[in-house]
Amino acid sequence: MRDKAIVNEKDATFYSVAWGRTKSLVAEGSPAISDKVQVRITEYLPGYVHTLHVHPTQDEIIFVLEGKGASETKSGKQEIGPGDVVLVPAGVEHATYNPNTEVLRAIIIKSPPDSK
Amino acid sequence: MRDKAIVNEKDATFYSVAWGRTKSLVAEGSPAISDKVQVRITEYLPGYVHTLHVHPTQDEIIFVLEGKGASETKSGKQEIGPGDVVLVPAGVEHATYNPNTEVLRAIIIKSPPDSK
Repeated sequence: MRDKAIVNEKDATFYSVAWGRTKSLVAEGSPAISDKVQVRITEYLPGYVHTLHVHPTQDEIIFVLEGKGASETKSGKQEIGPGDVVLVPAGVEHATYNPNTEVLRAIIIKSPPDSK
Repeated sequence: MRDKAIVNEKDATFYSVAWGRTKSLVAEGSPAISDKVQVRITEYLPGYVHTLHVHPTQDEIIFVLEGKGASETKSGKQEIGPGDVVLVPAGVEHATYNPNTEVLRAIIIKSPPDSK
């Protein structure tokens, strides 16, 4: 029976990535999976960077919950902080920096989701 | 030039809906628009309900930021609160209730976005 799925972000487990740690809310590794969109919480650790990269087919949204950092694309590097929502269209090279001493915590939405 | 767009949720303006109010972060009405996914913040006001309805083609995600309420589908009505992430797959009839005295504030993600 196709029905809703409910998860709580406190129950999701972080795993390490090169720029900090991330956990799946609606994505592989969570009981809630969509074939249209994925949602994670990512913590960019102080001094870390998610270096320039491109998602050829996925739009990405970075919704900052806590902390400050910077979002870089070819138009330059802009400071981001709480409440900022960054839309990175598919094919746009981008990087995310946390040069500060506090964690940069964000909801990361990608559509379509990562392929397995 | 295709590039990122940055908006801050504090700069977005609420408009009224039958169950409270909502504002566009990545959606029509915002400078940030994706053809793959939309993101809004919705406040379900105390005593209000977004009655049973279906999105035939859109997956919807309700990420609760503040307050408490309930999410209903055919499997029943579950209480939801801060940190809860509800995935409602396309075609699943659902309702959202706020029977409490505090606002139920949530990020609402839909993919694909609403058609114009």
